[in-house]
Amino acid sequence: MEIKLAENYGFCFGVKRAIKLAEQNSNAVTLGPLIHNPKEIDRLEKNFSVKVNDDISAVKQGGKAIIRTHGIEKKDFEKLKETTADIIDATCPFVTKPQEIVEKMSKSGYQIVIFGDSNHPEVKGVRSYAEHGAEVVADLSEVKKLTLRGKIALVSQTTKNVEVFKEIAAFLAANTKEVRIFNTICNATFDNQDAARKLSNEADIMLIVGGKNSANTKQLHAIALEKCPSSYLIEDKNDLDLSWFEGKKLCGVTAGASTPDWIIDEVINAVKAI
Amino acid sequence: MEIKLAENYGFCFGVKRAIKLAEQNSNAVTLGPLIHNPKEIDRLEKNFSVKVNDDISAVKQGGKAIIRTHGIEKKDFEKLKETTADIIDATCPFVTKPQEIVEKMSKSGYQIVIFGDSNHPEVKGVRSYAEHGAEVVADLSEVKKLTLRGKIALVSQTTKNVEVFKEIAAFLAANTKEVRIFNTICNATFDNQDAARKLSNEADIMLIVGGKNSANTKQLHAIALEKCPSSYLIEDKNDLDLSWFEGKKLCGVTAGASTPDWIIDEVINAVKAI
Repeated sequence: MEIKLAENYGFCFGVKRAIKLAEQNSNAVTLGPLIHNPKEIDRLEKNFSVKVNDDISAVKQGGKAIIRTHGIEKKDFEKLKETTADIIDATCPFVTKPQEIVEKMSKSGYQIVIFGDSNHPEVKGVRSYAEHGAEVVADLSEVKKLTLRGKIALVSQTTKNVEVFKEIAAFLAANTKEVRIFNTICNATFDNQDAARKLSNEADIMLIVGGKNSANTKQLHAIALEKCPSSYLIEDKNDLDLSWFEGKKLCGVTAGASTPDWIIDEVINAVKAI
Repeated sequence: MEIKLAENYGFCFGVKRAIKLAEQNSNAVTLGPLIHNPKEIDRLEKNFSVKVNDDISAVKQGGKAIIRTHGIEKKDFEKLKETTADIIDATCPFVTKPQEIVEKMSKSGYQIVIFGDSNHPEVKGVRSYAEHGAEVVADLSEVKKLTLRGKIALVSQTTKNVEVFKEIAAFLAANTKEVRIFNTICNATFDNQDAARKLSNEADIMLIVGGKNSANTKQLHAIALEKCPSSYLIEDKNDLDLSWFEGKKLCGVTAGASTPDWIIDEVINAVKAI
């Protein structure tokens, strides 16, 4: 089986930074999974005793608390500051940005619209910085249902699709007096997506390696499926199914922004052996 | 010949206001044509001695100067204030708005993008309020050629097409860190356009009555042509051509935002007589 890697794939800046912080702070507790990749979370626990816990009360007095890449809600951050724990903020700087924008814009009287998945921890965090609440919309149809006031501020979950963001921006531009649009979509996401799109044009089978609960991994999968119907989202080599490869020649490989290289390498070696 | 008027057509709020101001200030000079309709300009000169002059030095000391609906350039306004003339500002309030926005945004460090025709007096006026210059773009292709800085403010000429405005908004949303979009397109333009679109679906021939140099009249013509190939832009009844009506049953009539009712009435009476 011939294998071709996407020109851009895997770890982004924010994830690399967070893992480095976790490795430097063994025995810390991360509030929720540090990144959306269970295998890497396991490695950090095994090698560095960094444990996941959703409950702030689990943070020991005088212990260490790591804030996950997706950030946490403002009230939780404040609760954390009341403890005596060392706070290691591994929030991706590209996520801190929309948090700051939402806080500032809501203070300035703008109605906040967040393009994102309302259940995603990043969006929950960003939304919590809106002083008077925020509208979270998953697509244009949801924006059309909103009661829009005169002044709107729009931000995006960092991993969302730019084409849908453009549709929402265009609708708001035409239907409000003023809209301030902050493009908070992360370039790393774009780059991985463009490369996945390109590779899926030539590959007979596409493997997208990443956490099944990772938004950006799922998006890579959706993009790959457009051109290559034999596209599969796998968490690691154990998810591989031999039958997928029957009659295929070129296997394209890409990976979500929170997939470590060691998992990708294992997948590649397993496919090579087919 | 059956005649049907569009549900919305003709004079908008700003034009009605300007004509009233001109009628109340006989013997005044308007700096450039008050509105884009030569026949109405003639009527104001004949009945109220309101004369057009592009040259500020033609404004007599102690006389009266009317600022046209499209506004004038900031430097000309300042020059005018240095004279002893009474200034009657007939700038449409919907045009004053983008002038104010452009001034404020350029002072706040935003790069100014104006969607409009660079030669249109309204755009020349609005642009002149940008402290460090402004980019004027007629369509999306021109926006794509711009060197965009980080922070953009977008306004529109009041009479431009909202679909193109949306395209430009979407492009800027995706390609800048922040864009502040001010929808300065006038509702009256929308309403006349929607009504023209509707009527052109059922009419066999469409007459668009208005000045041939009026942007919004030309746009109504373009919209009517989409559904009704026999659509004609006429300034008054004298432009009518009998051959247009051969074999037609329903004649739709609409008019630009600066077309007075008396001209439309004359057209209707002439068509009825066919």
